[in-house]
Amino acid sequence: MSAGGRFITVEGVEGAGKSTQLPFIHGFLQARGVEVVLTREPGGTRLGEGLRELLLAHRSPPMASDTELMLMFAARAEHLDKVIHPALDRGQWVVCDRFTDATYAYQGGGRGVPAPRIQALEDWVQGPLRPDLVLILDLPVALGMERVHRRGEHDRFEREAQGFFERIRQTYLARARERPGRYRVIDAAGSVEETQARLSEVLEAWL
Amino acid sequence: MSAGGRFITVEGVEGAGKSTQLPFIHGFLQARGVEVVLTREPGGTRLGEGLRELLLAHRSPPMASDTELMLMFAARAEHLDKVIHPALDRGQWVVCDRFTDATYAYQGGGRGVPAPRIQALEDWVQGPLRPDLVLILDLPVALGMERVHRRGEHDRFEREAQGFFERIRQTYLARARERPGRYRVIDAAGSVEETQARLSEVLEAWL
Repeated sequence: MSAGGRFITVEGVEGAGKSTQLPFIHGFLQARGVEVVLTREPGGTRLGEGLRELLLAHRSPPMASDTELMLMFAARAEHLDKVIHPALDRGQWVVCDRFTDATYAYQGGGRGVPAPRIQALEDWVQGPLRPDLVLILDLPVALGMERVHRRGEHDRFEREAQGFFERIRQTYLARARERPGRYRVIDAAGSVEETQARLSEVLEAWL
Repeated sequence: MSAGGRFITVEGVEGAGKSTQLPFIHGFLQARGVEVVLTREPGGTRLGEGLRELLLAHRSPPMASDTELMLMFAARAEHLDKVIHPALDRGQWVVCDRFTDATYAYQGGGRGVPAPRIQALEDWVQGPLRPDLVLILDLPVALGMERVHRRGEHDRFEREAQGFFERIRQTYLARARERPGRYRVIDAAGSVEETQARLSEVLEAWL
């Protein structure tokens, strides 16, 4: 979609190992001589951080789901304008920790916002820009929950929310099935090293 | 558009006397037994105030115009959800100091954002809701500038910006011409009392 660089996003449910694998992907690409900008949603800009604070501060009373979606795409617009587009235009590659697929998965699949509502904002904010490659780190929700519990982050991942995270996972998988050209599902149920081996294979083939 | 109350918005360029006339409109309607909620954009909610601060804090470096527009409509979504819709549903009337027409005038006419870009977000956030009545307080830009200067608020209204405010005024007037059913242009070039007399006449006829 861009003149120069390529745009790669990394997605996955809680406990899939995104934070561990992102530096690995970064290193993998750098070792092949690619100049990589690592960024994340929604905090890639100063405004994004301000919006993130605003989102957290307005948990109670909760803001309208329309408002929340607008704020997410506002942060995305800024992230695109200040970080992603400039890097791609310079010919750098961008690896982004979560992007619009996460909105489809969490707000769409998880909370029931109709996909066409999300797509309208995606088109409005991104124009024709879509990731060149979406890496989905996938594992059964129960296993992800177990990993997060082991880290002692119980509150992030309540037992009664299993259905919520199951819908998120299924949305990611359905999007990957519908777009096999740009999406890759990576089995992240094994060890860190096993997932890295699968990632290397997928990236090697894609390059 | 709503089951119960009616939705009235008040628009106008700087110096048109909006702040002076809003309490008058409020009182006029109350005197006729109407229960009125007076509110304003974008600060009608706690989130709106937070967004306003965020907008002001990000003047330099400036945020992308897409981001700014998204934030405005985010504040509007919250304003609708927390203030406007609940009041209308209770059968109250809502008088709002600026609404989406101001976005068409300032961001559209003033800064050149294409109207279809604004309309996409208007449809997304408002659904079918449009004001039942839009009151546009109109006066020549030079006169508005003179009034603002007399108040000592020079910085808000730079001389070189006259073209900017002229485009805003013309956008308001064009929108009113295209929608004569719901829009009223009120000559606000005279004294406060003259404008009030015109407002009374227009409101009386509309009621």
